Amino acid sequence: MNNAPIGVFDSGVGGLTVAREIMRQLPNESIVYFGDMARVPYGSKSKDTVISFSRQIVNFLTEKHVKAIVIACNTASAFALSEIVAETDFPVVGVIEPGAKTADEITANNKVGVIATEGTVKSGMYSKVIKSINPDIEVFQKACPLFVPLVEEGLLYDSITIEVADRYLHDLLSYGIDTLVLGCTHYPLIRRTIQKVAGENVSLVSPAYETAKELEKIISKNNIESSLESAVHRFYVSDSADRFKKLASSILPCDIDEVVHVNIEQYG
Amino acid sequence: MNNAPIGVFDSGVGGLTVAREIMRQLPNESIVYFGDMARVPYGSKSKDTVISFSRQIVNFLTEKHVKAIVIACNTASAFALSEIVAETDFPVVGVIEPGAKTADEITANNKVGVIATEGTVKSGMYSKVIKSINPDIEVFQKACPLFVPLVEEGLLYDSITIEVADRYLHDLLSYGIDTLVLGCTHYPLIRRTIQKVAGENVSLVSPAYETAKELEKIISKNNIESSLESAVHRFYVSDSADRFKKLASSILPCDIDEVVHVNIEQYG
Repeated sequence: MNNAPIGVFDSGVGGLTVAREIMRQLPNESIVYFGDMARVPYGSKSKDTVISFSRQIVNFLTEKHVKAIVIACNTASAFALSEIVAETDFPVVGVIEPGAKTADEITANNKVGVIATEGTVKSGMYSKVIKSINPDIEVFQKACPLFVPLVEEGLLYDSITIEVADRYLHDLLSYGIDTLVLGCTHYPLIRRTIQKVAGENVSLVSPAYETAKELEKIISKNNIESSLESAVHRFYVSDSADRFKKLASSILPCDIDEVVHVNIEQYG
Repeated sequence: MNNAPIGVFDSGVGGLTVAREIMRQLPNESIVYFGDMARVPYGSKSKDTVISFSRQIVNFLTEKHVKAIVIACNTASAFALSEIVAETDFPVVGVIEPGAKTADEITANNKVGVIATEGTVKSGMYSKVIKSINPDIEVFQKACPLFVPLVEEGLLYDSITIEVADRYLHDLLSYGIDTLVLGCTHYPLIRRTIQKVAGENVSLVSPAYETAKELEKIISKNNIESSLESAVHRFYVSDSADRFKKLASSILPCDIDEVVHVNIEQYG
């Protein structure tokens, strides 16, 4: 049981930024990653649809005998975490609580910005969680739907991306935020561009990093640490493997040999 | 039978530009529209996945007793048209052949550009069809993955969209094209911006318009014209209706009263 893998899932490749942090911080833990490339993105889709997709993936990961699940997608964490927690009997971690906790620790002026997908922003989940930790914090949210396609086009440091970031961040910056949560797993990939536009006085919070830290605590608390000397990572996708492999190689520090296609609709 | 509706489907709202043309050119014909909002976009997904999604939708439309189907999505037309034609016993029209025919009629210098999604470009279908009509035409293709999210952000005439169009069209224009096919159903919505960047000497071809003309011919040839005095249009989506309604109202000349949610995965 302890040597069972951690299930990690996302709508696509973005969650690999979380998988990467888990690999770094918990090198003995094996990962079973699922990327829902056939139905990506989740950020513009409804709560019911995201819950239904997430359930199918959890069913798939459960069949793979995972000992814990990380929902490495902000939209799925916002919409589906409580349902998944209620329906499973092993630990489930989302990316929102870890990011929210860190935002609370970092902010000095109690003004926190959150950039995320339309779905995550609409859910209001970052506001709720941050305010449940510290009701004095003001949270300012902004949906940034162009960031994901810009990242996937590879325009990480491009003048177009800077111009788009300028527009998206303008209002948040005018409110005087000193902390900005990157509330979508793709955004760490344009961290440098976002930092440039936000300025050095704004601290960026990456839930990927915080989520891996949270996972470590939970694994330790439940006494389910792996004793494997070398972890084994497996990757599954709902669409063809080629595009996933190509994008994955720019995110992960290692090459992926095998990516297996899964008909995820069958896990309904 | 003649008064049965036309089935029209797309990965999302883009196909409404085709539905709009059908409403204009064939005002007596009723439409059953399906928008696969839960799995949009198709343009970055694999051939097998797009065929599988298209088959489910055709099964759904067949249950609605349509007399003909229009695949109002370039990616689905490129990947799935021949499969769907082989598997159905009523007329099926894609958007690529009508657009290709018109490009051939319009070009004077036999240099045609095609802008489309990654999937449509990879399929090479526009090149194949245009060259089957006139082997002397040179076809230059360019995938433009940022156009759809820019349209959905409402940045139709924005400086960012102009800058993106400048980049995407640069090479095509340097090849001296005199005709440019808008090979994605979203692109007519930024027609003015594309025309501005391409210049007045480049003629734009919108397959939406040509597809409605082609449909009219096929209906007439098969003697299945509707005798309805007032057509009835129905709209179905795989995700929540709200987002569809909001986007649809900016494309269609009429308001949509009712949009019905369908669990499309059940039509496997």
